[in-house]
Amino acid sequence: MNIDPRESLISAATHFYQKGWMVGTAGNLSARLPDNSFWITASGRPKGELTEQDFVRVDIDGQVLEKPNPDFRPSAETSIHQVIYQSFPEAKACYHVHSIEANLVSNFTEGNGLLLPSLEMLKGLGIWQENPSVEMPLFVNHLEVKKIANEISDRFLESPPKIPALLIRNHGVTVWANSPESAYNYIELVEYIFRYMMAARQVSF
Amino acid sequence: MNIDPRESLISAATHFYQKGWMVGTAGNLSARLPDNSFWITASGRPKGELTEQDFVRVDIDGQVLEKPNPDFRPSAETSIHQVIYQSFPEAKACYHVHSIEANLVSNFTEGNGLLLPSLEMLKGLGIWQENPSVEMPLFVNHLEVKKIANEISDRFLESPPKIPALLIRNHGVTVWANSPESAYNYIELVEYIFRYMMAARQVSF
Amino acid sequence: MNIDPRESLISAATHFYQKGWMVGTAGNLSARLPDNSFWITASGRPKGELTEQDFVRVDIDGQVLEKPNPDFRPSAETSIHQVIYQSFPEAKACYHVHSIEANLVSNFTEGNGLLLPSLEMLKGLGIWQENPSVEMPLFVNHLEVKKIANEISDRFLESPPKIPALLIRNHGVTVWANSPESAYNYIELVEYIFRYMMAARQVSF
Amino acid sequence: MNIDPRESLISAATHFYQKGWMVGTAGNLSARLPDNSFWITASGRPKGELTEQDFVRVDIDGQVLEKPNPDFRPSAETSIHQVIYQSFPEAKACYHVHSIEANLVSNFTEGNGLLLPSLEMLKGLGIWQENPSVEMPLFVNHLEVKKIANEISDRFLESPPKIPALLIRNHGVTVWANSPESAYNYIELVEYIFRYMMAARQVSF
Repeated sequence: MNIDPRESLISAATHFYQKGWMVGTAGNLSARLPDNSFWITASGRPKGELTEQDFVRVDIDGQVLEKPNPDFRPSAETSIHQVIYQSFPEAKACYHVHSIEANLVSNFTEGNGLLLPSLEMLKGLGIWQENPSVEMPLFVNHLEVKKIANEISDRFLESPPKIPALLIRNHGVTVWANSPESAYNYIELVEYIFRYMMAARQVSF
Repeated sequence: MNIDPRESLISAATHFYQKGWMVGTAGNLSARLPDNSFWITASGRPKGELTEQDFVRVDIDGQVLEKPNPDFRPSAETSIHQVIYQSFPEAKACYHVHSIEANLVSNFTEGNGLLLPSLEMLKGLGIWQENPSVEMPLFVNHLEVKKIANEISDRFLESPPKIPALLIRNHGVTVWANSPESAYNYIELVEYIFRYMMAARQVSF
Repeated sequence: MNIDPRESLISAATHFYQKGWMVGTAGNLSARLPDNSFWITASGRPKGELTEQDFVRVDIDGQVLEKPNPDFRPSAETSIHQVIYQSFPEAKACYHVHSIEANLVSNFTEGNGLLLPSLEMLKGLGIWQENPSVEMPLFVNHLEVKKIANEISDRFLESPPKIPALLIRNHGVTVWANSPESAYNYIELVEYIFRYMMAARQVSF
Repeated sequence: MNIDPRESLISAATHFYQKGWMVGTAGNLSARLPDNSFWITASGRPKGELTEQDFVRVDIDGQVLEKPNPDFRPSAETSIHQVIYQSFPEAKACYHVHSIEANLVSNFTEGNGLLLPSLEMLKGLGIWQENPSVEMPLFVNHLEVKKIANEISDRFLESPPKIPALLIRNHGVTVWANSPESAYNYIELVEYIFRYMMAARQVSF
């Protein structure tokens, strides 16, 4: 049994980078281990060419447990991964990317939830209804990341999201899943939906 | 003589996935064998990395005949492939993909046919006219796939389509052809036409 | 000295196909030999996977001289390549591709010339001026290709074009150059300009 | 210690070419050596397939010191690289590319600075503020490149830019950094911001 998920994270990052969703070192990916610690991308590393040295292992409270490269720090947004793993015990992977489309659709509403279009693709996020009406939770982008993390934690405790994804305004999307493979699919699905929303608005739908 | 078309289906799926037309496991491809059974992609498999294990062979009535991987089920949309093979005896391949553009143009009309622009590319779909006026049949997306399949079967019996392609609203395009190579070309041609229609509307044509 | 330019044509076709400019077997590329005959892509071959068998060698009057594969015919648009080589003795390569953008910008005017934006990129097409005002010749798309070819020949005899490129409405762009390498660059430059024109109109410039 | 940065420049050019930012031989990349001379791409070479022969080494005043291929001249825009290295002693690399988006956003204002949107991505360019308001310096595109270079030099002496990037109207973006790796990231970041600005305008933001 392979308990080191870094290979999956590297492969996902390469793909997301090529798609333009992790340019200029943006974004961060993590995967949780059986002991409840998680590997997360180190801060400031180019996502198109990660190696196993470009990760840091932290515990659920954010304490660094293992650093293959002593110069690297965990992602500046580690606290968001912590609250995801704390809020969702079944979550084994948490992926955050910064697409242009995610940034723009996050401004389609001033509220705290983004209504998604009624697409077949929602089935892939667990929504099996005819003409479903689903919102993606939307959060304010504070300069202090811990403040964002706390707002996520608080809101999800009160009202759990219907889909495993959240948006931070002007700051990209975060998904979580019970495996790296599913987290990869969720990123593809939400980015597809964001591109659809942008294209729909361009043709005035 | 090679009667196993799975290699062609895998290669087509890889290409369509890279184009963004089969993201998040969406879409399904099939090819018919001389004995009238057909190989179809298994449900929920990632289309960018299919292997021969990711297919199921079913007969024309949808009964499973062969499953290299016992855990896999045939695509949830197998019934649409069945009615295509039943309606068009010459069809040897049937490809269904979910592009953003196909979803959007399916909403350019409320009717049951989408008027295509008069492009040189229509020659590739068998239309050799100056300034041709051709519609692509358009169907409602029911949650129950068999209901969609029945409507396709009924309508095509009454009025056969002029081109080997149909749209399901918000649910992508399906083409059929007398070989996997031609089905691949047809997908490229219809997606080109959809991108053209989207771009034309963006510049207010 | 290598006088067989098919390798260059194959490599260019692969690139143009990947860019989406030669989908569904569309487009055709040729290169002239010292004896004034030229190799041209055979009709209906998939442009993303050409081999040396996928070409036909014809003389300047369009007579077939050599067919590695006896089943193949020269491109249906060979007559356009003939008039280019007849009109421009220095032309050694002639490339024709079908991008979505070329089709759309060909409708930006009802006249017989498309005014190009004043871009730095025009230098690559031989225009060295500050704020240049250059038109690309634009022709009607007749179903009979010879009719298009004749109109090109007639107009260029009367008024030679300022740049080595012409548009056929709804039917893509054709460039010619004194080497396959330069023809490749010209295709890239004109397609860049078309994409620019489309994007400019989308933001209402 | 490796003091020859051409490998980094080749790899960056290949990537930028594939993104469509260096098509048709456009753009130029350079890196400064410890002796204050710099390697710069030769004029007119295809940027998708550079080799070490496709560079020229010049001193800070633009005099040619080394030409692996005697037929090649330094980029026509070498004078811009000179003023960047003269103005910023810490700059070790200077990259100039010609994207469609850079050209278009350069026309979003008639002034001499382009206001950038308040994106998370600005952190990568050294701006750590909540809702930052930052301008990218914008220059007129003169046919004589030295005139552009002089205007850059003069303006930066008076008012140093807040970010390591400048735009020339209709003529692409230039960035500089203390390493080729950082220059590569800066190009990615500014191009991301330009694409964002274009997309935002398309949805009327």
